[in-house]
Amino acid sequence: MSAVAVRAMFRSHPERPAHADALSAAIDACFGCVETCTACADACLSVRDIDNFRACIRLNLDCAAVCAAAGSILSRANKAGHRQLLEAQLANCIAFCRACAAECERHAEMHRHCRVCADACNACAEACNEMLTAMRTPA
Amino acid sequence: MSAVAVRAMFRSHPERPAHADALSAAIDACFGCVETCTACADACLSVRDIDNFRACIRLNLDCAAVCAAAGSILSRANKAGHRQLLEAQLANCIAFCRACAAECERHAEMHRHCRVCADACNACAEACNEMLTAMRTPA
Amino acid sequence: MSAVAVRAMFRSHPERPAHADALSAAIDACFGCVETCTACADACLSVRDIDNFRACIRLNLDCAAVCAAAGSILSRANKAGHRQLLEAQLANCIAFCRACAAECERHAEMHRHCRVCADACNACAEACNEMLTAMRTPA
Amino acid sequence: MSAVAVRAMFRSHPERPAHADALSAAIDACFGCVETCTACADACLSVRDIDNFRACIRLNLDCAAVCAAAGSILSRANKAGHRQLLEAQLANCIAFCRACAAECERHAEMHRHCRVCADACNACAEACNEMLTAMRTPA
Repeated sequence: MSAVAVRAMFRSHPERPAHADALSAAIDACFGCVETCTACADACLSVRDIDNFRACIRLNLDCAAVCAAAGSILSRANKAGHRQLLEAQLANCIAFCRACAAECERHAEMHRHCRVCADACNACAEACNEMLTAMRTPA
Repeated sequence: MSAVAVRAMFRSHPERPAHADALSAAIDACFGCVETCTACADACLSVRDIDNFRACIRLNLDCAAVCAAAGSILSRANKAGHRQLLEAQLANCIAFCRACAAECERHAEMHRHCRVCADACNACAEACNEMLTAMRTPA
Repeated sequence: MSAVAVRAMFRSHPERPAHADALSAAIDACFGCVETCTACADACLSVRDIDNFRACIRLNLDCAAVCAAAGSILSRANKAGHRQLLEAQLANCIAFCRACAAECERHAEMHRHCRVCADACNACAEACNEMLTAMRTPA
Repeated sequence: MSAVAVRAMFRSHPERPAHADALSAAIDACFGCVETCTACADACLSVRDIDNFRACIRLNLDCAAVCAAAGSILSRANKAGHRQLLEAQLANCIAFCRACAAECERHAEMHRHCRVCADACNACAEACNEMLTAMRTPA
């Protein structure tokens, strides 16, 4: 998928959400982060020096779980008015993405999978942050 | 499963987590809430008067997603020291559980599935809150 | 949750599914297996002798993923008549549960978490198999 | 994410999987399908003529669940030799994707979200099928 495809779906959604551009970008970044973190966890599990990677594997799996929740919640967003829940979920997602990115950065020079994963986590944190900003900006 | 079975697993975990009783109860309540919210979403989707249930279905699915993330994150908890992340996830889970419970309560008298679901959501919020309390209590 | 609670929800489901006893037991066993496999993956990740546990961790995570899908699909089951899909998902779930149980059995004497997990996987395979049998038995 | 990014991660995976091109494409298609089906379920839930969309919503959610499992299992694939499990999961994913695509096609002319979703489901079925073919082709 791509943010463009999600955006196209929202255009035909009977209850069009507000901030559809920022929302589509955040949803796509979340599912992209699930994909990357899941793959990174598996690559890290195969690393010989496992003692340095246990925390990374756990954060990868945590971040994948949080981003999967965020991606699906955002797909149902902006209708019922549970604005505070959505903001809490976005903030939570940003926190896990930043923590996972920071841990992956530590290994990024030696392990390209951690480089790719840190980038995806940072991109997801940024997209969620832009959605938060859009929600807080008066129309 | 049961909190007792999770507790038994932690007993043989090479890195035994702190607060294992509260943690086991919270994990079990989270996965129980995934189960209940998923079933409630489907029962609500079959209700004839759908206009009154769209918000409930969405909250059920949201709550299931958040509790699934919380349950798996808690299963990896209390090792790496990402205490703030864990607290954020617990607080997030409590917020969704309470919102879902409140929505289900509105339909609980007429629809027994919403009664069962509200109870599971409240129980999960309480178990997560007890885990938060345990984490904040000096040993 | 418990099979009894799922069963109670089905009783008030506007489109009551067939085989509600076997279905409730299978759903509850699936989510219980998600819980156990997730916890087992984390305990195995902490084991010192990681070389003997990589396959177990991967199967734990695979089995958790398949059981989560099966549990949610079963919660929406027996309405639309996609009987073949349901049978395929049940068979798939049984296959992963048995493979995970067999791998956990290898470590079960030394590692109690693998003992608990093998039992949950076997119980889930059995509950799914009983649901398959119920579906194939003429009413 | 993109198949290219997944492919880049496999290049640095300590245990490089076989068929990495087909595998990367299948993983990316699976997570893309999770994203699309989740969004389609929500758009369908808002459709006024709900009686014609209940089956579609359920299949959307089912397909999202199966593709999430398949995407994560494929990310751990081709190491432990559980070739039969992988083939079963791919076949299962193809079956749900095709059923969901067929249901979405019924609404595709009137509802653009169903058009986008049918396309994503068909693309996922095709990518999984190419992975199956790659696995069965002697090197």
